[in-house]
Amino acid sequence: MSFLTGFHAIEEALKSAGRGKGTLYVSGKGPRIKKIEELAARRGVPLVRLSAPELRELSSSEHRGIALSIEGYTPESSFEGFIESIGDNQTSLLVLLLDGITDPHNFGAILRSADQFEADFVCIPERRAASETEVVANSSAGAVHHVPFAQVPNLSRAVEKLKKHGFWVYGAAMGGDPIHSVDLTGRIAIVLGSEGRGISANLATHCDAEVAVPTRGRLDSLNVSVAAGIILYEIRRQQAW
Amino acid sequence: MSFLTGFHAIEEALKSAGRGKGTLYVSGKGPRIKKIEELAARRGVPLVRLSAPELRELSSSEHRGIALSIEGYTPESSFEGFIESIGDNQTSLLVLLLDGITDPHNFGAILRSADQFEADFVCIPERRAASETEVVANSSAGAVHHVPFAQVPNLSRAVEKLKKHGFWVYGAAMGGDPIHSVDLTGRIAIVLGSEGRGISANLATHCDAEVAVPTRGRLDSLNVSVAAGIILYEIRRQQAW
Repeated sequence: MSFLTGFHAIEEALKSAGRGKGTLYVSGKGPRIKKIEELAARRGVPLVRLSAPELRELSSSEHRGIALSIEGYTPESSFEGFIESIGDNQTSLLVLLLDGITDPHNFGAILRSADQFEADFVCIPERRAASETEVVANSSAGAVHHVPFAQVPNLSRAVEKLKKHGFWVYGAAMGGDPIHSVDLTGRIAIVLGSEGRGISANLATHCDAEVAVPTRGRLDSLNVSVAAGIILYEIRRQQAW
Repeated sequence: MSFLTGFHAIEEALKSAGRGKGTLYVSGKGPRIKKIEELAARRGVPLVRLSAPELRELSSSEHRGIALSIEGYTPESSFEGFIESIGDNQTSLLVLLLDGITDPHNFGAILRSADQFEADFVCIPERRAASETEVVANSSAGAVHHVPFAQVPNLSRAVEKLKKHGFWVYGAAMGGDPIHSVDLTGRIAIVLGSEGRGISANLATHCDAEVAVPTRGRLDSLNVSVAAGIILYEIRRQQAW
């Protein structure tokens, strides 16, 4: 079972996801916990009381007196479903593909920005470990329950499918064209690689062009979730969104 | 004593800071550790070998076989010194003021972006706890050693001083003017507040105007370090940097 233990993450999950999903486990007391219990009751989510050590054992993590099991909470999305849903009149679409972004804090922060800039879909490779659910959900401030995302078996194949549907696919890479000098309107997909290794060589060959956030400074690069946020901002700025 | 334990953070500190500062403590082995030992030797930093439990006790933190004590590593900056160093010909300057950004990951990530977009100075209030040094340094990927920053006793007074020196001071706040519609050239200072509470009421009254990153989405806001990165990007974009 996967659990959320952050107050904010639990509230977001209860507010956004379907009724009656998961179970709320409570060992603690207090006004914030009481508020969450009431929210769960309104959403038809069952409540189980137990001791703090029992909760720690159940959730395998530190907690502040409350945990939500989140079976069935993630948006039911599939990449195939997204592709099939695209209408001819949707001239503007925005997809993110995350290649090797294994740090759950960064993944969560990118999902949060994807929510704020209304990305239409986020693709991640299948190898992502499920054990990171909790950190991702907390770092995303709940966006993990809003943003349509799915694991795909092969990112290069996903890129080719997007290109067939009129997407222009940009890989984010040092040495790419400055993002403000590139036309980022229309159907756009952005591939982001890991901070250390960048986009894998094979996947990079499938991109139409490379873009970069122009920076100077003495370090190698921006944090990948900051770079993702800046690229999403620039896309929406150009689109007079 | 404060310690760095991240490989990357230790490398950045050794590369960037003055010669012979601090001490390298090593309990582990491996190619990466060997590389760091060689770097320390070139930089005149003494090496002490000890056992892994000894290192854990000394540094009070988890480690991967290596830690660097960082006395004297932080840039010797003062806000007064920065103000005095401003020349009449410096028509373009960029200062960040961080109000209540207590999460060390966010603070580190903001310093990293400040490095990448060449902010001239970063002000933080004095109440910051020194125990966060390690997390800040790792999250900043070493920027903590490059970016001039200093604690000031009172952010409002710092804002007034900046205004006297020709700075236009913007507070980042939901409901502010969209950043791409605001002139961000010249001597600019940006005040960033905490995610929960924003800029404190008194400090906000000292700002000349409010700006915001335009977002939609179902959540309240962007992560503060992502918002900071976007604002820094937009400033540099407008300045055709």
